[in-house]
Amino acid sequence: MKRLEKLYEGKAKIIYATEDPDLVIQYFKDDATANDGIKKGTIVDKGVINNQVSTRIFQYLEEKGVATHYVEQLNDREMLVKSLEIIPVEVVFRNVAAGSLCKRLGIEEAKHLDPPIQEFFLKDDPLHDPMINESHIKTFEWATEKEVAFLKASGSKVNQLLEEFFKARGIRLVDFKLEYGRHKGEVLLGDEISPDGCRLWDLETGEKMDKDRFRFNLGSVEEKYQEVYKLVCGEGV
Amino acid sequence: MKRLEKLYEGKAKIIYATEDPDLVIQYFKDDATANDGIKKGTIVDKGVINNQVSTRIFQYLEEKGVATHYVEQLNDREMLVKSLEIIPVEVVFRNVAAGSLCKRLGIEEAKHLDPPIQEFFLKDDPLHDPMINESHIKTFEWATEKEVAFLKASGSKVNQLLEEFFKARGIRLVDFKLEYGRHKGEVLLGDEISPDGCRLWDLETGEKMDKDRFRFNLGSVEEKYQEVYKLVCGEGV
Repeated sequence: MKRLEKLYEGKAKIIYATEDPDLVIQYFKDDATANDGIKKGTIVDKGVINNQVSTRIFQYLEEKGVATHYVEQLNDREMLVKSLEIIPVEVVFRNVAAGSLCKRLGIEEAKHLDPPIQEFFLKDDPLHDPMINESHIKTFEWATEKEVAFLKASGSKVNQLLEEFFKARGIRLVDFKLEYGRHKGEVLLGDEISPDGCRLWDLETGEKMDKDRFRFNLGSVEEKYQEVYKLVCGEGV
Repeated sequence: MKRLEKLYEGKAKIIYATEDPDLVIQYFKDDATANDGIKKGTIVDKGVINNQVSTRIFQYLEEKGVATHYVEQLNDREMLVKSLEIIPVEVVFRNVAAGSLCKRLGIEEAKHLDPPIQEFFLKDDPLHDPMINESHIKTFEWATEKEVAFLKASGSKVNQLLEEFFKARGIRLVDFKLEYGRHKGEVLLGDEISPDGCRLWDLETGEKMDKDRFRFNLGSVEEKYQEVYKLVCGEGV
């Protein structure tokens, strides 16, 4: 599948058209941003790692009955996916308190959250992705009520599946963000599932293995991405 | 009913014990704060007006089957109410876009919201009353699931009743905040219902008749509170 014109360039990925209007190519960049785009940098080979990690996880989720946009991995940095009309609502699940939750609600980092917390955020960079609720989604018609129910149920299932998946590999799934989109009347899990959008801690030591290392200048950014890659996909890049 | 020791002093009210452990006195001050307490001032006779307005509205809601903490008005500034174990969750309803909603979500002021938007905020001054959702309330046990369902249903009913009430008096109910508490196994509507916690606009001109006049230094603060008082309670203070 050959890539045609660029349809969209985001902070970490580029979307290219293909000859098939139902399929697009998702190209993974090494660019990293944090703090609402104020901090910018590069994580060497992040694009390669996130493509492999996302591929492995999408394959796993598909096996478990979760419909995703994944079609196939084309090469190191490119994934063929179904084209989506993105639902502008990010679905976040939190199993352990970290990040903005701690700041917003005064919760101690690392507190176990039972039941897991589910949040919605509006995908809107100029507004800094504000937190929203189901009432906002309904009134402003960002998704239908049926879609909201689906996002919650699907997200909860994905959370359970990913928690098990990472636990079996020595990783604690702290929290993560999902994006969904519409494709031929069906809602599919889209975007990527990688250390860019998941908080992953070493199950034994609690060490951070995700984009927080870049966000907070903790060092060993590339090393930890590589470690996640090896744990998720097997050996060496 | 004589007032005994001070139990709590908030920004706009003081709560005093009485000889009856099930009853407390709510004393209405003229003090006004805005912008997270950074802006402080006085609105002359606000306490008197808010006590009368709240009394009238609690009586109206009770007539319509809403259980409130209201018992009786004792004098100009004091209301006898049932003692509540406050649920630390503020329930907000919005019929028209204004205030923080516009800023957070980039919505144009005065946009009609259909269906009305319902939001929850955590009552927590040091955290600046952050927005929360049902998942946070459940995980952190700020209220039971049954209570959350009650807050939503009761709040929605109160919204309909108040919209009608104010409309009949030439006032547009833009948005408002409710607080609830537990009393002998029952959840009651508490706090006050006044231009301090409701956005009220003139139905004809759209002129603001509430605490936004103080917040944004719009002038005629006392005059507009008086006007609301007259429209809600009849003539003259």
